[in-house]
Amino acid sequence: MTKHLVREIDKLKQQILNLAAEVEAAVYQAVKAVQERDYDRAENVIEQDLEIDAQEVEVEEECLKILALHQPVAIDLRFIIAVLKINNDLERIGDLAVNISRRAKSMTKLPRTKNAPDFGPMSSRVMSMLRKSLEALVNLDADLARSVCAADDEVDDLNKQMHMIIQEGIRSSPQDSEMLLQLISVSKNLERIADHSTNIAEDVIYMIEGEIVRHRDSQLKQHYS
Amino acid sequence: MTKHLVREIDKLKQQILNLAAEVEAAVYQAVKAVQERDYDRAENVIEQDLEIDAQEVEVEEECLKILALHQPVAIDLRFIIAVLKINNDLERIGDLAVNISRRAKSMTKLPRTKNAPDFGPMSSRVMSMLRKSLEALVNLDADLARSVCAADDEVDDLNKQMHMIIQEGIRSSPQDSEMLLQLISVSKNLERIADHSTNIAEDVIYMIEGEIVRHRDSQLKQHYS
Repeated sequence: MTKHLVREIDKLKQQILNLAAEVEAAVYQAVKAVQERDYDRAENVIEQDLEIDAQEVEVEEECLKILALHQPVAIDLRFIIAVLKINNDLERIGDLAVNISRRAKSMTKLPRTKNAPDFGPMSSRVMSMLRKSLEALVNLDADLARSVCAADDEVDDLNKQMHMIIQEGIRSSPQDSEMLLQLISVSKNLERIADHSTNIAEDVIYMIEGEIVRHRDSQLKQHYS
Repeated sequence: MTKHLVREIDKLKQQILNLAAEVEAAVYQAVKAVQERDYDRAENVIEQDLEIDAQEVEVEEECLKILALHQPVAIDLRFIIAVLKINNDLERIGDLAVNISRRAKSMTKLPRTKNAPDFGPMSSRVMSMLRKSLEALVNLDADLARSVCAADDEVDDLNKQMHMIIQEGIRSSPQDSEMLLQLISVSKNLERIADHSTNIAEDVIYMIEGEIVRHRDSQLKQHYS
């Protein structure tokens, strides 16, 4: 690998980490806006998404530039392709934080309900998955990436639990259904953030080990169920 | 471009079209399973998803092979990168068809409700977006791709309408809420399929015109609102 390519890849790593930090902050603020019924905080997440979008475009352009100028092979090629895909996932996570913020804004106009579930455990689980998936990318740590994939099932279960609690709330207090439907959407968006974090972790494993781990689990489940 | 590279790219085009055809069929069958309360049809979509996953892995491997062996530049490089991303979107659309099928299965166990909205107009709009986005890829037709992006707002509106109808249904018949929540999820999944089709169309435009159209709309909206 030429010195020039090393430098370009280091720069790319820094860019994707900056983007990840912005995205993580957006998710944190969005959930906080829901919990604290904070309209301005939610609005701020929505405005900051422009910055996330601009950074995603920059990362993609940087990847294409490296591919065209340096024509990397082997692990370097796999790294660039992984960054291209992870970049995409990060931008989508930013969009999901915007979705949550839009819900938070609507919720400030609705009466409070006693039937709202606590999103604390679910959101901290999801944020930890996101953080670890990026840590795995930077440190090329396949084991850490695998732990992220494993955590996805827990988040799916938490989402189902939220769904049950909310459904029960709608049945017992139909007058709260508008508020509770907003909360179902928050839960669903958090679950999708966990899915994107799992995609990132899978891409990291693939990059390190050169094999495609996606779908293998579901194939095993299918074959043995 | 060498003859060999031309051949490889033609093969790749065929592969991604085959995958798109499978995915389109999965969406069609999933919606039909909801409409006809057809458990077996839904189960079939879920089983067929293994095939879609396997094809996605093949397309990705083919892209990496071409990048490593032929080190394409300019439009060829952009084409490969576009296929890599579109491949990802197609696989996710397959997963969304699985989600809809799971809902269809659950719904066969629930009593019918008079408050169910008609998904016909929304699902045919979504399927047409998916089909056109792939047609735009194969024929390098940026105008067609732009029409897909424009249609996305219509689907968003249809999703909001479904949401309103269902919310009204829950308020007037809380005993149907379990069924109606399943239908909200079907609507949401269709809307996400439209989002992925829009992503595909945006990647096609970028590939053809070498510029990133994503986010430009939202930036304009932000600046002029």
